[in-house]
Amino acid sequence: MLGLGNMGQALARAFLAHGHPTTVWNRSPEKGDALVAAGATRAASVADAVVGADLVIVCVVDYVVARQLLEPAADALRGRTVVNLTADTPDAARELAGWAAGHGIDYLDGSIMTPTVTIDTPDAVLIYSGPAGLHQRHAATLAALGGAQHHLGTDPGRAAAYDVALLDFFWTAVSGLTHAFALAKAEGIDGADLAPLAEGLATLLRDSVAEHGERLDAGRYDADVAGLGTIAAGLEHVVAASERRDLDSTVQRAALAQLHRAVAAGHGDDDVSVLSATLLAEREVASRA
Amino acid sequence: MLGLGNMGQALARAFLAHGHPTTVWNRSPEKGDALVAAGATRAASVADAVVGADLVIVCVVDYVVARQLLEPAADALRGRTVVNLTADTPDAARELAGWAAGHGIDYLDGSIMTPTVTIDTPDAVLIYSGPAGLHQRHAATLAALGGAQHHLGTDPGRAAAYDVALLDFFWTAVSGLTHAFALAKAEGIDGADLAPLAEGLATLLRDSVAEHGERLDAGRYDADVAGLGTIAAGLEHVVAASERRDLDSTVQRAALAQLHRAVAAGHGDDDVSVLSATLLAEREVASRA
Repeated sequence: MLGLGNMGQALARAFLAHGHPTTVWNRSPEKGDALVAAGATRAASVADAVVGADLVIVCVVDYVVARQLLEPAADALRGRTVVNLTADTPDAARELAGWAAGHGIDYLDGSIMTPTVTIDTPDAVLIYSGPAGLHQRHAATLAALGGAQHHLGTDPGRAAAYDVALLDFFWTAVSGLTHAFALAKAEGIDGADLAPLAEGLATLLRDSVAEHGERLDAGRYDADVAGLGTIAAGLEHVVAASERRDLDSTVQRAALAQLHRAVAAGHGDDDVSVLSATLLAEREVASRA
Repeated sequence: MLGLGNMGQALARAFLAHGHPTTVWNRSPEKGDALVAAGATRAASVADAVVGADLVIVCVVDYVVARQLLEPAADALRGRTVVNLTADTPDAARELAGWAAGHGIDYLDGSIMTPTVTIDTPDAVLIYSGPAGLHQRHAATLAALGGAQHHLGTDPGRAAAYDVALLDFFWTAVSGLTHAFALAKAEGIDGADLAPLAEGLATLLRDSVAEHGERLDAGRYDADVAGLGTIAAGLEHVVAASERRDLDSTVQRAALAQLHRAVAAGHGDDDVSVLSATLLAEREVASRA
C-alpha cells in the first residue's frame, strides 16, 4: 500500500482485516504507525515495499505524485500488478497506463466513488478499468475493500472518466445547495426550515437521473414538464433575488448563460436534458471555428 | 382563475374537480376552452372575472404581468382575497403585497414547488406567506390543489424566498448533472452507463441536505469527510478533463473559484457547508468596501 492519507489508511486496514499480509509505505512514515500496530509491515522505500507483493495499491494526491513514486521503482515493479486508486483525469490515467506497459508492469486504474468511512462496508463503490483479466485475477483480494467493485472497460482512462463526471455532478450540485442555503439565510430562513423542502427536490433530482441518461442516449428532448425557456425565467429570479442580497452568483449566472445560449439555439421548448447535447454541439462548433 | 398557462389550467381543473364554481380568464381566451367544456365560466375581463369571487387565484409569467392584470381591476378587487401563485423574487412579492394593502385587497403570496402533473395529487407541494388568518380562511378551498399546503410566515416575500432558494439548488444541480452526462459522453460513456452511479451520488446528496442546514444554523464547519482543499482538487480534475474535451465549463470554473476563495480565507480543512457562510461573509466584506 503506497500512500497513507485517510483513504490509504482505510484501504490498508481493510486488507489487514481480511487477512492479507500488507506492507505499507508513506513519505511521512509516522502515518503508518497505527497500521504497523495492527500488523502491517513498514517499508523504508517504494522499491522495498513492492518486493514480493502480488498487488501494489497506490492512493496518493494525484498522478504527478504517483509517477514520482513509481518511476524510481520501475525495475522492482516489473511483472507485478499496480492498482492505482489515485484520483485524476482520464488522460493522466491513460498516460500512466502507457508508462506501466512500457516497463512490463500490469496496470489497473481505479476510482473510489464513496467516502473513506464506506471502505470495508457494503456501501463502498469502487470502479476499475484496464485489462479485464487483470481485474478478475485480483478481484478476490480487492473484495476486501467492500461493497461493489465494478470493472468498466479496458480503456485505462474509463474509471477516471466516470470519476470526473460523477464529481462534476456532485460538487456542482453541492455548490448550488450551499448557495441556496445562503440565499435563504439572507432572506431570514433558517437551514432547518429550508432543509425538508430541499430534501424533497433532491429526491426529484435523483428520480430524474435515469431519464436524463435515456434522453441523451436517444437524442429525445421534447419537454414533458418545463421547457428551457421556463427554467431560464426561474433562474433569472434566482440571480435577481441573490444579487438583491449582494450574494456572489457567478455559478448561477454561468448556468443561466448556458440556458440562454441553448434557448437562442432554438431549444426554448425542449427538456433540460438537451443541455448535455448543446454542450457537446458547442464543442463541435468551437472546433470548426 | 387569472392566467391559463399549463399550470393555471391545472389549478382551474383542480378547483372544478372539487366542486368549486370557477370563473376563468386568460389574455388569449381559447386557452380556457377545455375548462369551459368542463364547467368553468369564462369572463371577458379581469374585472368581470373577479366579481363575486371569494378567492382570486393568479398564475401568470411574472409579477410585472400580474400587476398589469390586477391594477385596472383594483376597485373590483377591494375586499376580496388574491392568492398569487406566480413565481418571482421575494421583493416583487413584497411590492405587490404593498400595492394590494393600499387598495384594501387581502393578499396571500404563494409558490408551487412541484410540477404541473402533481396538482390535485398527494405529491403537490404549495407554500404560502402573508396573513396567517387569511391562509386559514381559504385553506379548505386551496386544499383542492392537493398535497401539502404550508403557510410559512407573515412576510409576504417568504414563499418567494423559499421558491428562489429551492430553484437555485435544483437548477444548479441539474446544470451539473447535464454537464456530467456531456463529459461522460465525450469520454465515450453512455448515459445509461453513468446513470446508476449518478443516482447513487444523488442519494448521498439528498442524505446530506439536513446536515448542511444544521451546520449553517449552528455555525459548525469542521469536516467529517472531505475538506474544501480535497474538494477543490477534485473539481480541478473535472475542469481539466472537461476542457481537454473542449466542453464549456464556466459553471464548474465558477464553483471552483468560489472554493479557492474559501480555501484562501482559511477554510481548506472545513466541511463544504462552510461555503454558505463564506458567501454570506463575502457579502459583508463587499458592503463594507
